[in-house]
Amino acid sequence: MQTFPLTKVSIVTEALLKDRIIAEIRAAGAKGYTMIECSGEGSRQRRVSEILGDNIKFEVITTQANAERLLQILQHDYFPQYAVIAYLTQVNVVRGDKYV
Amino acid sequence: MQTFPLTKVSIVTEALLKDRIIAEIRAAGAKGYTMIECSGEGSRQRRVSEILGDNIKFEVITTQANAERLLQILQHDYFPQYAVIAYLTQVNVVRGDKYV
Amino acid sequence: MQTFPLTKVSIVTEALLKDRIIAEIRAAGAKGYTMIECSGEGSRQRRVSEILGDNIKFEVITTQANAERLLQILQHDYFPQYAVIAYLTQVNVVRGDKYV
Repeated sequence: MQTFPLTKVSIVTEALLKDRIIAEIRAAGAKGYTMIECSGEGSRQRRVSEILGDNIKFEVITTQANAERLLQILQHDYFPQYAVIAYLTQVNVVRGDKYV
Repeated sequence: MQTFPLTKVSIVTEALLKDRIIAEIRAAGAKGYTMIECSGEGSRQRRVSEILGDNIKFEVITTQANAERLLQILQHDYFPQYAVIAYLTQVNVVRGDKYV
Repeated sequence: MQTFPLTKVSIVTEALLKDRIIAEIRAAGAKGYTMIECSGEGSRQRRVSEILGDNIKFEVITTQANAERLLQILQHDYFPQYAVIAYLTQVNVVRGDKYV
Protein backbone atom coordinates (compact mmCIF):
# COMPACT_ATOMS: atom_id res chain seq x y z
CA MET A 1 0.00 0.00 0.00
CA GLN A 2 1.67 3.20 -1.14
CA THR A 3 1.15 6.26 0.99
CA PHE A 4 2.68 9.74 0.83
CA PRO A 5 4.15 11.67 3.77
CA LEU A 6 2.38 15.01 4.19
CA THR A 7 1.73 17.49 6.98
CA LYS A 8 -1.56 18.01 8.78
CA VAL A 9 -2.17 21.49 10.16
CA SER A 10 -4.69 21.52 13.04
CA ILE A 11 -6.17 24.90 13.99
CA VAL A 12 -8.57 25.43 16.89
CA THR A 13 -10.08 28.89 17.15
CA GLU A 14 -13.19 30.97 17.74
CA ALA A 15 -16.11 30.07 15.43
CA LEU A 16 -16.54 33.70 14.39
CA LEU A 17 -13.23 33.47 12.50
CA LYS A 18 -14.51 30.66 10.27
CA ASP A 19 -14.66 32.48 6.94
CA ARG A 20 -11.39 34.31 7.50
CA ILE A 21 -9.52 31.10 8.38
CA ILE A 22 -10.93 29.33 5.29
CA ALA A 23 -9.63 32.22 3.18
CA GLU A 24 -6.19 31.93 4.82
CA ILE A 25 -6.09 28.16 4.20
CA ARG A 26 -6.71 28.76 0.50
CA ALA A 27 -4.22 31.65 0.39
CA ALA A 28 -1.54 29.36 1.83
CA GLY A 29 -2.03 27.00 -1.12
CA ALA A 30 -3.92 24.13 0.53
CA LYS A 31 -6.48 22.28 -1.59
CA GLY A 32 -9.06 21.50 1.09
CA TYR A 33 -9.90 21.27 4.76
CA THR A 34 -12.11 19.50 7.28
CA MET A 35 -14.01 21.55 9.86
CA ILE A 36 -15.34 20.24 13.19
CA GLU A 37 -17.38 22.05 15.83
CA CYS A 38 -15.87 21.88 19.28
CA SER A 39 -15.61 23.58 22.62
CA GLY A 40 -12.79 23.88 25.10
CA GLU A 41 -10.73 25.90 27.46
CA GLY A 42 -7.65 27.81 26.44
CA SER A 43 -4.31 28.12 28.13
CA ARG A 44 -4.39 31.84 28.77
CA GLN A 45 -7.92 33.18 28.88
CA ARG A 46 -9.32 30.32 30.90
CA ARG A 47 -12.45 31.16 28.97
CA VAL A 48 -14.72 28.14 28.95
CA SER A 49 -16.83 27.70 25.85
CA GLU A 50 -19.20 24.96 26.87
CA ILE A 51 -21.65 25.47 24.03
CA LEU A 52 -21.11 23.13 21.08
CA GLY A 53 -19.98 25.06 18.08
CA ASP A 54 -18.51 27.99 19.95
CA ASN A 55 -15.09 26.93 18.76
CA ILE A 56 -14.07 25.35 15.51
CA LYS A 57 -11.29 22.96 14.55
CA PHE A 58 -9.79 22.91 11.07
CA GLU A 59 -7.66 20.08 9.73
CA VAL A 60 -5.67 20.79 6.60
CA ILE A 61 -3.51 18.19 4.87
CA THR A 62 -0.91 19.80 2.68
CA THR A 63 2.80 20.11 1.94
CA GLN A 64 5.22 21.16 4.67
CA ALA A 65 5.84 24.41 2.75
CA ASN A 66 2.12 25.29 2.61
CA ALA A 67 1.75 24.28 6.26
CA GLU A 68 4.53 26.63 7.33
CA ARG A 69 3.09 29.45 5.23
CA LEU A 70 -0.28 28.96 6.94
CA LEU A 71 1.31 28.92 10.40
CA GLN A 72 3.16 32.14 9.63
CA ILE A 73 -0.07 33.88 8.63
CA LEU A 74 -1.75 32.67 11.82
CA GLN A 75 1.24 33.63 13.94
CA HIS A 76 1.41 37.13 12.48
CA ASP A 77 -2.25 38.09 12.00
CA TYR A 78 -4.26 36.03 14.50
CA PHE A 79 -2.24 34.97 17.54
CA PRO A 80 -1.87 38.51 18.88
CA GLN A 81 -5.63 39.14 19.00
CA TYR A 82 -7.48 35.84 19.03
CA ALA A 83 -7.54 32.55 20.91
CA VAL A 84 -5.80 30.22 18.43
CA ILE A 85 -4.11 26.85 18.79
CA ALA A 86 -2.12 25.61 15.80
CA TYR A 87 0.03 22.52 15.45
CA LEU A 88 1.50 20.15 12.88
CA THR A 89 1.26 16.35 12.73
CA GLN A 90 3.07 14.12 10.26
CA VAL A 91 0.67 11.83 8.39
CA ASN A 92 0.79 9.32 5.53
CA VAL A 93 -1.88 9.90 2.96
CA VAL A 94 -3.53 7.74 0.29
CA ARG A 95 -3.42 9.46 -3.10
CA GLY A 96 -1.08 12.21 -2.01
CA ASP A 97 -1.28 13.90 -5.42
CA LYS A 98 -4.70 15.28 -4.43
CA TYR A 99 -3.09 17.52 -1.83
CA VAL A 100 -0.22 19.16 -3.67
CA MET B 1 3.83 4.52 31.73
CA GLN B 2 3.79 1.74 29.16
CA THR B 3 2.18 2.53 25.83
CA PHE B 4 1.97 0.53 22.61
CA PRO B 5 2.73 1.85 19.12
CA LEU B 6 -0.28 1.44 16.85
CA THR B 7 -1.66 3.06 13.70
CA LYS B 8 -4.60 5.44 13.53
CA VAL B 9 -6.54 5.45 10.25
CA SER B 10 -8.47 8.68 9.69
CA ILE B 11 -11.18 8.63 7.02
CA VAL B 12 -13.22 11.67 5.98
CA THR B 13 -16.07 10.99 3.59
CA GLU B 14 -19.70 11.64 2.69
CA ALA B 15 -22.15 10.91 5.53
CA LEU B 16 -24.27 8.70 3.28
CA LEU B 17 -21.45 6.13 3.27
CA LYS B 18 -21.58 5.71 7.06
CA ASP B 19 -22.91 2.16 7.28
CA ARG B 20 -20.74 0.90 4.43
CA ILE B 21 -17.56 2.35 5.94
CA ILE B 22 -18.38 0.83 9.34
CA ALA B 23 -18.75 -2.54 7.62
CA GLU B 24 -15.37 -2.08 5.88
CA ILE B 25 -13.68 -1.14 9.18
CA ARG B 26 -14.91 -4.40 10.70
CA ALA B 27 -14.01 -6.40 7.60
CA ALA B 28 -10.44 -5.08 7.81
CA GLY B 29 -10.15 -6.55 11.32
CA ALA B 30 -10.37 -3.39 13.45
CA LYS B 31 -12.04 -3.70 16.85
CA GLY B 32 -13.68 -0.28 17.05
CA TYR B 33 -13.93 3.25 15.71
CA THR B 34 -14.81 6.81 16.66
CA MET B 35 -17.12 8.81 14.40
CA ILE B 36 -17.34 12.63 14.25
CA GLU B 37 -19.66 14.82 12.21
CA CYS B 38 -17.84 17.41 10.15
CA SER B 39 -17.99 19.54 7.06
CA GLY B 40 -15.36 20.69 4.62
CA GLU B 41 -14.15 21.29 1.16
CA GLY B 42 -12.38 18.68 -0.92
CA SER B 43 -9.39 18.99 -3.16
CA ARG B 44 -11.09 18.09 -6.42
CA GLN B 45 -14.79 18.80 -6.34
CA ARG B 46 -14.49 22.12 -4.52
CA ARG B 47 -17.86 21.09 -3.19
CA VAL B 48 -18.52 22.92 0.03
CA SER B 49 -20.58 21.09 2.61
CA GLU B 50 -21.32 23.78 5.09
CA ILE B 51 -24.06 21.88 6.91
CA LEU B 52 -22.88 20.09 10.03
CA GLY B 53 -23.06 16.36 9.56
CA ASP B 54 -22.84 16.38 5.79
CA ASN B 55 -19.46 14.71 6.06
CA ILE B 56 -18.21 12.22 8.58
CA LYS B 57 -14.79 11.47 10.03
CA PHE B 58 -13.84 8.02 11.27
CA GLU B 59 -10.84 7.33 13.47
CA VAL B 60 -9.74 3.72 13.76
CA ILE B 61 -6.86 2.58 15.96
CA THR B 62 -5.53 -0.74 14.86
CA THR B 63 -2.45 -2.66 13.71
CA GLN B 64 -0.45 -1.47 10.70
CA ALA B 65 -1.57 -4.62 8.83
CA ASN B 66 -5.28 -3.93 9.45
CA ALA B 67 -4.76 -0.25 8.59
CA GLU B 68 -3.21 -1.13 5.25
CA ARG B 69 -5.99 -3.61 4.50
CA LEU B 70 -8.57 -0.90 5.19
CA LEU B 71 -6.75 1.62 2.98
CA GLN B 72 -6.63 -0.91 0.16
CA ILE B 73 -10.39 -1.47 0.36
CA LEU B 74 -10.98 2.30 0.31
CA GLN B 75 -8.52 2.83 -2.51
CA HIS B 76 -10.10 0.14 -4.65
CA ASP B 77 -13.83 0.46 -3.93
CA TYR B 78 -14.41 4.06 -2.84
CA PHE B 79 -11.80 6.48 -4.16
CA PRO B 80 -12.89 6.09 -7.79
CA GLN B 81 -16.49 7.13 -7.06
CA TYR B 82 -16.66 9.05 -3.79
CA ALA B 83 -15.01 11.99 -2.06
CA VAL B 84 -12.73 10.23 0.43
CA ILE B 85 -9.68 11.38 2.39
CA ALA B 86 -7.70 8.65 4.17
CA TYR B 87 -4.45 8.92 6.09
CA LEU B 88 -2.38 7.18 8.75
CA THR B 89 -0.92 8.64 11.96
CA GLN B 90 1.42 6.82 14.34
CA VAL B 91 0.09 6.85 17.91
CA ASN B 92 1.00 5.35 21.28
CA VAL B 93 -1.91 3.73 22.99
CA VAL B 94 -2.70 2.79 26.59
CA ARG B 95 -3.75 -0.88 26.84
CA GLY B 96 -2.78 -1.74 23.29
CA ASP B 97 -4.10 -5.29 23.67
CA LYS B 98 -7.64 -3.94 23.27
CA TYR B 99 -6.95 -3.08 19.63
CA VAL B 100 -5.33 -6.22 18.23
CA MET C 1 8.81 28.96 11.23
CA GLN C 2 9.70 27.85 14.74
CA THR C 3 7.56 25.16 16.29
CA PHE C 4 7.91 23.23 19.55
CA PRO C 5 7.60 19.45 19.94
CA LEU C 6 4.85 18.58 22.41
CA THR C 7 2.55 15.65 23.13
CA LYS C 8 -1.15 15.47 22.31
CA VAL C 9 -3.24 13.24 24.56
CA SER C 10 -6.46 12.06 22.90
CA ILE C 11 -9.14 10.61 25.18
CA VAL C 12 -12.42 9.14 23.95
CA THR C 13 -14.92 8.24 26.63
CA GLU C 14 -18.54 8.32 27.80
CA ALA C 15 -20.05 11.82 27.83
CA LEU C 16 -21.21 11.41 31.42
CA LEU C 17 -17.56 11.53 32.54
CA LYS C 18 -17.07 15.02 31.06
CA ASP C 19 -16.62 17.03 34.24
CA ARG C 20 -14.47 14.40 35.91
CA ILE C 21 -12.12 14.15 32.92
CA ILE C 22 -11.78 17.94 32.74
CA ALA C 23 -10.79 17.92 36.43
CA GLU C 24 -8.21 15.17 35.76
CA ILE C 25 -6.76 17.12 32.81
CA ARG C 26 -6.22 20.12 35.10
CA ALA C 27 -4.87 17.96 37.92
CA ALA C 28 -2.27 16.50 35.52
CA GLY C 29 -0.97 20.03 34.88
CA ALA C 30 -2.32 20.68 31.37
CA LYS C 31 -3.28 24.26 30.54
CA GLY C 32 -6.25 23.60 28.25
CA TYR C 33 -8.19 21.11 26.16
CA THR C 34 -10.46 20.79 23.15
CA MET C 35 -13.65 18.76 23.44
CA ILE C 36 -15.58 17.19 20.52
CA GLU C 37 -18.85 15.27 20.56
CA CYS C 38 -18.63 11.90 18.88
CA SER C 39 -20.06 8.42 18.75
CA GLY C 40 -18.50 5.06 18.08
CA GLU C 41 -18.10 1.45 18.91
CA GLY C 42 -15.60 0.14 21.41
CA SER C 43 -13.34 -2.86 21.25
CA ARG C 44 -14.79 -4.76 24.15
CA GLN C 45 -18.37 -3.84 24.85
CA ARG C 46 -19.41 -3.67 21.20
CA ARG C 47 -21.79 -1.06 22.51
CA VAL C 48 -22.84 1.19 19.66
CA SER C 49 -23.58 4.78 20.54
CA GLU C 50 -25.18 6.11 17.44
CA ILE C 51 -26.54 9.28 19.00
CA LEU C 52 -24.31 12.32 18.49
CA GLY C 53 -22.85 13.42 21.76
CA ASP C 54 -23.09 10.09 23.54
CA ASN C 55 -19.32 9.94 23.59
CA ILE C 56 -16.81 12.72 23.93
CA LYS C 57 -13.28 13.20 22.65
CA PHE C 58 -10.75 15.35 24.49
CA GLU C 59 -7.53 16.59 22.94
CA VAL C 60 -4.91 17.94 25.32
CA ILE C 61 -1.60 19.40 24.17
CA THR C 62 0.95 19.35 26.93
CA THR C 63 4.40 18.16 27.98
CA GLN C 64 5.30 14.47 27.82
CA ALA C 65 5.49 14.46 31.64
CA ASN C 66 1.97 15.87 32.05
CA ALA C 67 0.70 13.51 29.33
CA GLU C 68 2.08 10.48 31.15
CA ARG C 69 0.65 11.69 34.46
CA LEU C 70 -2.77 12.01 32.82
CA LEU C 71 -2.53 8.54 31.26
CA GLN C 72 -1.61 7.06 34.64
CA ILE C 73 -4.68 8.62 36.27
CA LEU C 74 -6.89 7.28 33.46
CA GLN C 75 -5.25 3.85 33.60
CA HIS C 76 -5.68 3.55 37.34
CA ASP C 77 -9.05 5.20 37.99
CA TYR C 78 -11.06 4.90 34.76
CA PHE C 79 -9.97 2.00 32.58
CA PRO C 80 -11.18 -0.66 35.03
CA GLN C 81 -14.76 0.67 35.10
CA TYR C 82 -15.40 2.78 32.02
CA ALA C 83 -15.06 2.61 28.25
CA VAL C 84 -11.98 4.77 27.65
CA ILE C 85 -9.56 5.05 24.74
CA ALA C 86 -6.39 7.07 25.36
CA TYR C 87 -3.40 7.62 23.11
CA LEU C 88 -0.49 9.96 22.49
CA THR C 89 0.52 11.69 19.26
CA GLN C 90 3.68 13.74 18.75
CA VAL C 91 2.88 17.24 17.42
CA ASN C 92 4.75 20.46 16.67
CA VAL C 93 3.08 23.49 18.13
CA VAL C 94 3.19 27.22 17.39
CA ARG C 95 3.91 29.21 20.55
CA GLY C 96 4.77 26.19 22.66
CA ASP C 97 5.23 28.33 25.77
CA LYS C 98 1.43 28.53 26.10
CA TYR C 99 1.28 24.84 26.93
CA VAL C 100 3.94 24.37 29.59
